[in-house]
Order: sequence, then structure tokens, then C-alpha cells
Amino acid sequence: MQFVGRVTVRRPVLRLTIGPADGSADGRASRRVERPDSLAVEEPLELRVGGVPLTVTMRTPGSDVELAHGFLLTEGAIGGREDVRIARYCDSLDEDGRNTYNVLDIELAPGVQPPVGRAFLTTAACGVCGKAALDDVRLRSRFAPAVDGCRVDPAVLAVLPQRLREVQRVFQSTGGLHAAGLFTAGGELLWVREDVGRHNAVDKVLGAALLADALPATGTVLMVSGRASFELTQKAAMAGVPVLAAVSAPSSLAAELADELGITLVGFLRGNSMNVYTRQDRIAP
Amino acid sequence: MQFVGRVTVRRPVLRLTIGPADGSADGRASRRVERPDSLAVEEPLELRVGGVPLTVTMRTPGSDVELAHGFLLTEGAIGGREDVRIARYCDSLDEDGRNTYNVLDIELAPGVQPPVGRAFLTTAACGVCGKAALDDVRLRSRFAPAVDGCRVDPAVLAVLPQRLREVQRVFQSTGGLHAAGLFTAGGELLWVREDVGRHNAVDKVLGAALLADALPATGTVLMVSGRASFELTQKAAMAGVPVLAAVSAPSSLAAELADELGITLVGFLRGNSMNVYTRQDRIAP
Repeated sequence: MQFVGRVTVRRPVLRLTIGPADGSADGRASRRVERPDSLAVEEPLELRVGGVPLTVTMRTPGSDVELAHGFLLTEGAIGGREDVRIARYCDSLDEDGRNTYNVLDIELAPGVQPPVGRAFLTTAACGVCGKAALDDVRLRSRFAPAVDGCRVDPAVLAVLPQRLREVQRVFQSTGGLHAAGLFTAGGELLWVREDVGRHNAVDKVLGAALLADALPATGTVLMVSGRASFELTQKAAMAGVPVLAAVSAPSSLAAELADELGITLVGFLRGNSMNVYTRQDRIAP
Repeated sequence: MQFVGRVTVRRPVLRLTIGPADGSADGRASRRVERPDSLAVEEPLELRVGGVPLTVTMRTPGSDVELAHGFLLTEGAIGGREDVRIARYCDSLDEDGRNTYNVLDIELAPGVQPPVGRAFLTTAACGVCGKAALDDVRLRSRFAPAVDGCRVDPAVLAVLPQRLREVQRVFQSTGGLHAAGLFTAGGELLWVREDVGRHNAVDKVLGAALLADALPATGTVLMVSGRASFELTQKAAMAGVPVLAAVSAPSSLAAELADELGITLVGFLRGNSMNVYTRQDRIAP
């Protein structure tokens, strides 16, 4: 398919280094080198449901069908692959008449409703707060990660960032992609996906799990390359993931949601240490 | 105001380090320390225009009025402070009857229209592609950063990441916030704002500039702590910022948009080096 080659592009860049080549102390001199550089591709993807435009997300092309399934899952519209009848690219032509592969139309199974606006948006009259956002996720999730009895060895967790980095092929050439990986509690990699958007990388991974009939994702660890926000924790909850691990910091609402839903939230997973914010009982040798 | 104290919260965390305290080679032993940790606060903010809900963004409380102005600016609805009559928190009460300060209502000046959906969403019938997204921004921007004749010394650029970090107070305690800073071409800091969302940090800074009647932001550098996406480049363009600098990688569409609009895009600004992707003529001692 055409988009396979579209995850990176090359373009010329001026590489500028301050300081003279001989290393002397003139900080105002600089070396200027023109060279080609690889950039991570970002393109808009329009999702339609039954022909009706639903949303546009800026994403890295590839795994678009997984992205669509993951988005519909984490927005509460679908719970399994049987809820989608067909996913197909529309004939969205650019000005040269070529298909952009940037419009994907989803036909839902009979009786399945497209996602509506977030409940905490439509019920805002009673006060928008973190509590309302937490309630909204709890109401919509089909799965109960709280009852997942899996255990994860901290020594297994500690190697996941490195494992994620090793399989991030595009990141290695561009430095510009977020990654999400779904691992077993024993540390086996199930799926990894990359994207310019961190939420897209997670949607792609969870969409892959859904398409493999692997939901709820019991006994798994969702590892993300950046921070843990409310939104990423919500996505983990909607797929039934019991352990969310992030290289960087979580937000307050990520920790509150993880607490409320019984998800183990791990942050600052770097080197040989980590912070466990919630459900520490799952982290044990 | 109530939200001033709400940028960080404390909660208990289990700090777990693998390896015994004596440093011997048993990789499966671990030290476990319970301690309080500071987390960056994330709360939903609902923006209304004339009482009608427009959007909900997950943000760090504080500078909400700037955030609202910056959002309306970068969505193309307003161009100056005179376009907004009043910004006020609604009486959005939580279940204990306290104001959440999470609903902000904006009353626009007569004749000013609220933002509509992105043009590349509504005109998608002709193909969603990067080109359509670029056209959309060009059509909506009131300013022309391309004609900005400012020059920035690379030695000045090289110190901006450190200057940004120094004034990031909340980041230093939580590790969880993105920052955006607007600097003069000479390196003087004008405004810096932090947020769990990178787009929010930029909206807050640009909203602050708008409220100070400082738009178009000619002769400025917008410095961001993370990557440069299409969306951040678009925001810079909508405020007339001529130079966008990022600590990390740009995306392909960020570089294309910067190219199209005559914005200087700098990436990988770290240590004593940087990559200049577009309009290199502005980067000179």
C-alpha cells in the first residue's frame, strides 16, 4: 500500500554548531553543515463513521485501521472486532488526483452506535471537574482492570523502556516519534506502534489488540515512551489493561483515575528504578 | 484566586530501586521506600463562548484567561484583546458546592464570530492531505511572519533551553510539565508558561502576548520544551511569530508549514548545536 513508505521523509537541514573547529574559546564562531535529515511524517487522518466525518487526527501514516479501531474502542463505541463491519480508505484525492489514503470510513455493525461527545462535556452544567471526568470513564468502560490478579516483577518492568526503544525503528532515524508497547506481565512484547502523537501510538496498539481478539487485555503492561496523562490512563482502562508504565511523570488526574479504576500506574521508569503510584500489590518479584 | 495553589498536588508513592543496598550483583533484590511525591495537576477546562460549550481541554489550572485568549487566537476567531468583551469563570460547582474554576465563559465583542471547525475538516470531500491543512492555516492567519526581518544569533538560541528550564518552577518539582517561552530575538524572556499539555503551554504564552497588545509577535522566538508539530507551528503562525525553536524533533508537516509561511524552524536545540529546517537567513551572528 502506498502509505508504507510514508513514515519518514528526507529534507535538507542546516546543522549548526557553535564554537570553532579547533575547540578554542570563541563561542560566537560556528560551523554550518548542509545535509539531508529524516523527519517523521505527520499527516491528517479523517475518520468517518458510516460516511459521516467524526474527527481529524494528525498522525503518522500506517496502521490506520488499527488506529481507527483503537480510537473507537477508547471512546467507548466498540468493544470487539465484531462491532466493525468494514474499514476502508475513501477515494480522497489530492490536487494531482492521487489517493491521499488520509480518509478512512468505518461501517459499524448493526446496532452499534458511533461515539458521542464526552459525558463530562455534555453534563457540564453540574460542574466540570476531575471527578466528573473520572465518573465518565468508569461509566463507559466495558472491562474491569481492578480485578486483574496479574503480578509483574520490577526487574521485568525495568527492562521495558530499553526493549521499547530497540524496536522503535522510526524513532532511531528521526528522534520524532512516540512509542507505545503492549507487553505480557512476563515482559514479552505483543505489539509496538509509533506515531507523532502519543495518543495515536496508544490507539494503534490497543486497536491491534482488539483486532487480534485479545481484549480485555488482562495480564498486560502498556508501556509509553513519554508521560502518563489522564487520557492515556483512560485508554488503558477502556481496553482492560491492568498496568500502565511511563518513562516520565504522571499527572495528578492520571494517578486519580488509576486509583479509582484499580490500574497499577508506574512512572519515571528509568534505569533501575521507578515510582509506583497506585495498586502497588501487583509489582512484586 | 483559588486555583493558584492547584498546580501541584502531593500524593504517596512507592519508590522502588532494583539491586540490594550493598551494591552486590543480585539484580532481583529491590529497595522499597514509601514517600510523598509532587504531581503536576491536570484538570478539565471547559471553554464556552456566549454561554455555548465550545471545547474541553485537559490543562494545568492557572493562566486560564490567557489560555482561552490564546486558543481563540490560534483557532482564528480573534486577533486582539479588543475582540473579547469579558472572560469570567462560571458558577460551576462540584458535588460539595464549591466552584471548580473549570468553566470559563468568553463574551466576544459585537461582530466577532466564535471559531468554526477546521477548514480541512469541512472541505474534506476534496481530499484530506497535508496541503489542505497548510492552505487552511494560510487562509486564516491575520499576520505575515514571512516578512519579519529579524535576525537571531545562534549563540543566543543555544542558551534558550537552559533559560526556559530555569524559570520552569513546577517542572522542577514534578518533572511533568511542558513549557513554552516567548523571547525577543536578543534572548530576553517575555513570557513563560507551563502546562501538562504542550499546546496549552503555547496557547497561554500567546494569549499573554495578545492581552499585552503585543501581536503580531514580530522579532520574537517561541521556544518549546518538546517537539515541533504541525499544530504548534500553526499556533506560532497565527500569532505572527517568525522563529519557532524546539528542544526535540520537528514533524514533516511542521517543516512544510514553516517553509510555506516563512517561519524559521529550529529543532534539536541542545547543548551547542541545532538543526535549522527553514528560513536559515534569520539565524546569523
